[in-house]
Amino acid sequence: MEISELGEFGLIKRLTENIAPRNASTEKGVGDDCAVLNYGGPNRLLVTTDMLMEGIHFDLQYTPLRHLGWKSVIVNLSDIYAMMGTPRQITVSLALSKRFTVEDIEELYAGMRMACEAHHVDLVGGDTTSSLTGLAISITAIGEVAPEDIVYRSGAQPNDLICVSGNLGAAYMGLQLMEREKQIYNSQVSEIQRNMARAKAEGDEKTLSSLNRQLSELDFQPDFSGREYLLERQLRPEARGDIAKALRNAGIRPTAMMDISDGLSSELMHICTHSQTGCRIYEERLPLDYQTAVMAEELNMNVSTCALNGGEDYELLFTVPLTDNDRVSQIPDVRVIGYITEEKLGRALICRDGSEFELKAQGWNPLKNANQ
Amino acid sequence: MEISELGEFGLIKRLTENIAPRNASTEKGVGDDCAVLNYGGPNRLLVTTDMLMEGIHFDLQYTPLRHLGWKSVIVNLSDIYAMMGTPRQITVSLALSKRFTVEDIEELYAGMRMACEAHHVDLVGGDTTSSLTGLAISITAIGEVAPEDIVYRSGAQPNDLICVSGNLGAAYMGLQLMEREKQIYNSQVSEIQRNMARAKAEGDEKTLSSLNRQLSELDFQPDFSGREYLLERQLRPEARGDIAKALRNAGIRPTAMMDISDGLSSELMHICTHSQTGCRIYEERLPLDYQTAVMAEELNMNVSTCALNGGEDYELLFTVPLTDNDRVSQIPDVRVIGYITEEKLGRALICRDGSEFELKAQGWNPLKNANQ
Repeated sequence: MEISELGEFGLIKRLTENIAPRNASTEKGVGDDCAVLNYGGPNRLLVTTDMLMEGIHFDLQYTPLRHLGWKSVIVNLSDIYAMMGTPRQITVSLALSKRFTVEDIEELYAGMRMACEAHHVDLVGGDTTSSLTGLAISITAIGEVAPEDIVYRSGAQPNDLICVSGNLGAAYMGLQLMEREKQIYNSQVSEIQRNMARAKAEGDEKTLSSLNRQLSELDFQPDFSGREYLLERQLRPEARGDIAKALRNAGIRPTAMMDISDGLSSELMHICTHSQTGCRIYEERLPLDYQTAVMAEELNMNVSTCALNGGEDYELLFTVPLTDNDRVSQIPDVRVIGYITEEKLGRALICRDGSEFELKAQGWNPLKNANQ
Repeated sequence: MEISELGEFGLIKRLTENIAPRNASTEKGVGDDCAVLNYGGPNRLLVTTDMLMEGIHFDLQYTPLRHLGWKSVIVNLSDIYAMMGTPRQITVSLALSKRFTVEDIEELYAGMRMACEAHHVDLVGGDTTSSLTGLAISITAIGEVAPEDIVYRSGAQPNDLICVSGNLGAAYMGLQLMEREKQIYNSQVSEIQRNMARAKAEGDEKTLSSLNRQLSELDFQPDFSGREYLLERQLRPEARGDIAKALRNAGIRPTAMMDISDGLSSELMHICTHSQTGCRIYEERLPLDYQTAVMAEELNMNVSTCALNGGEDYELLFTVPLTDNDRVSQIPDVRVIGYITEEKLGRALICRDGSEFELKAQGWNPLKNANQ
């Protein structure tokens, strides 16, 4: 059977079902943002891990190594915050091909260390080895959380409010923007190379040397003006520890929570599945940045689709009891976008014209789309 | 600067120096088999991680996926035992290319689950994604150890006895054996393919079809008879939890310990460097299996060199006070191979004829040799 038939979540489900914990210290294994361990201290331990592969998760043609280092740490910390935890340590494993210099790896590490500093996290170990091909980065993050504060995906109840932090779809628009500029650059290079091949075939040394100069001096200026926010969301995402903290300070205990890495739709479906509920979210409530809307318009894309399925937002998606409406509405940068329903009512998006569409998890599935 | 100039350990040193822990829970960061964390429970936590890359650490032409799964878990558990800990949980990240089927990954997982079962460990999480090229496996293991039982690399003292478990060099001989059989198989295939190309060029359809059949029916039987132990050591290594347990039961607290993954020489140099000592080990005391010696002879290799630098033994290397001589000698499968000296006396191998050779860490350095 091909892996693409099952997809990432289907494969994980198939591989990990019937795994019963053997150790008393394993409180929660596979199935949430983090595993939860109980080693007898006052707090529970949270463990999460992510693997980033060149060509699948990042394109080094437009991703500076320092930003990549930052992002690869942040995506892990985001999972710790999504259980209301505080990250403390990470381990970093790298597989490097020969084209990387020591200075390259120092750049990558500089970004990782910046992320560690910003989130008060220690880099405590790792592994560094070779790769025959691209760069692979595997990071594991460990954090802690008071037992009474842990929030799983499975606790949402009918009538709970569905909330998201920040805004959605901007990182995806940033990716589209960089892909577009990359295509323009690559097509300029290709055209010069085609002309060079022709000049060479014709023995036209003068043209050849002029084209050679043109290629080496090609000063491509990608057009990112006014789109800086989109780039930043793609290249330098943040993990919303501030939101987790604000919820704690406000005395709000979410009933379910996870971070949005694969797109709002996909993550909301996870919460509904784990909590055995349905949901209604309102298109008009989806939080969007102005630049996201402008970019979507320019690319002839539906901005709501971008917000629902874009992915890589690393915002927090959570549910709170209806009675927390006032308190949660006072937290800056958090918006209520809908509510949880009984499971039998299904999962739907209510559009601006009042029509209902069934939510589908069309989120970014690396095992389905990116295989080649 | 090219990474090969620094090597793995030089690169790690350069990247991680000046990293001071920020969190009280970080008791020991980079620099030993595991990081040591203190989250306020009765025991300390141990964390270690390893990354295995196709083409660098394993060759799927002769490595069954089930064995690969087993081994990828075992190499991590070995690091936990090397701090006198007990492994409890692992996370598993995989990057898969499209050529793998669901059944392939189930085989890989079956091996991992067997290792978890054998060592009473829980698989609590991970990440599964795509790879544009080969298979990548990244595993993190978590274990626990009583604070008074932790053994670092840095505690060896002059006059301490140097001990190893099991025998050395067998896994390396197993690798050589499989490489040899692979070459024989590949050269048979190449010859048929060359003849096919010739027949095709000559338009000799009859010969072509006969060669085609020959290729599809090629029944290559690698010659492993009498060498099963070497294969097992390479494909299905064990982590020596039994030795750690026997030491605890005998009331022996090693002064320094690590596991032998890169070769005895290399690991002993680490212990000496961390402990600021020298050492003397005896060639005649190196523990060897009969099959290792026979295979080395057949390949015209020096068997002591194989034992010193072969790597992938996953045995334990440790030092104990001289006063533990009697007790340690009674533990089955442990051998005293030499002693620790003052640092100024250097690090040497004493050969059978009494001559001394300076020990060199010629261990398997994936960043030096395998890059391409």
